[in-house]
Amino acid sequence: MRPNERAMNEDLQLLEANRRFYQALSDLDLAAMEEIWLHEPWVSCIHPGWPVLHGWPGVLESWQDIFANTVRQRVEPSQVAVRVFGEVGWVSCEEHVSIPTETGETVYVAVVNNVFVITDSGWKIILHHSSPMPIEMDESPPPQVH
Amino acid sequence: MRPNERAMNEDLQLLEANRRFYQALSDLDLAAMEEIWLHEPWVSCIHPGWPVLHGWPGVLESWQDIFANTVRQRVEPSQVAVRVFGEVGWVSCEEHVSIPTETGETVYVAVVNNVFVITDSGWKIILHHSSPMPIEMDESPPPQVH
Repeated sequence: MRPNERAMNEDLQLLEANRRFYQALSDLDLAAMEEIWLHEPWVSCIHPGWPVLHGWPGVLESWQDIFANTVRQRVEPSQVAVRVFGEVGWVSCEEHVSIPTETGETVYVAVVNNVFVITDSGWKIILHHSSPMPIEMDESPPPQVH
Repeated sequence: MRPNERAMNEDLQLLEANRRFYQALSDLDLAAMEEIWLHEPWVSCIHPGWPVLHGWPGVLESWQDIFANTVRQRVEPSQVAVRVFGEVGWVSCEEHVSIPTETGETVYVAVVNNVFVITDSGWKIILHHSSPMPIEMDESPPPQVH
């Protein structure tokens, strides 16, 4: 395989791994969620508005809690960008989360970075950092914040 | 150099690069901030409450805006964890930002992931994702959020 083909192949596999993560989220499928993460004490996860979770046991527990408290949701990534550096893959995207309500549905958007490492079983997530997308985007960003 | 020594050396260099980033922030030193970032169209930055910034020109402009609108601040990282995967370095930490006011100082805390790549001039930032630390941490995390 030529270098360009290899790179394209890696990108596609990384995209596919990221797609599986969002499929697991939409399906509230804990087994699929477990499958896509690396089970190490140093993996990390930040859900919007949550403290940092360090280590697979805590990350797993958070998905169990979220799935147990969610009846139905649809989570669609957009603006997906991928980049592979050797054994590490970086995906940035937006998450559009739709949750049905009695009167329609609630939609919110988060900005996300997912970091994967390649293993013998494919790309596995080591970091998920999701934070709320600002609702109003002003031309002049707020000062004294970084 | 033995593998363990090499790994320790890489970790220390990554920690030092991360320290320089926070020193640039505290000093409002734009040249030092430019020095620590990779100047590529695919680098990315999320300041708390901001939309995603893609590409070095937009990232640079955000630091220019922040530094122009900040008289003085002290930014101290804590809970710093580093991990090197070949050419990629990942730093997770908390940022404690202290901004002097007329009556004392305002302090806020953000949770952060910084991703670096190694170059001929050392570790350079390719991703800075900073989001607000929740003010109150409840035992039971909020449902239907991820």
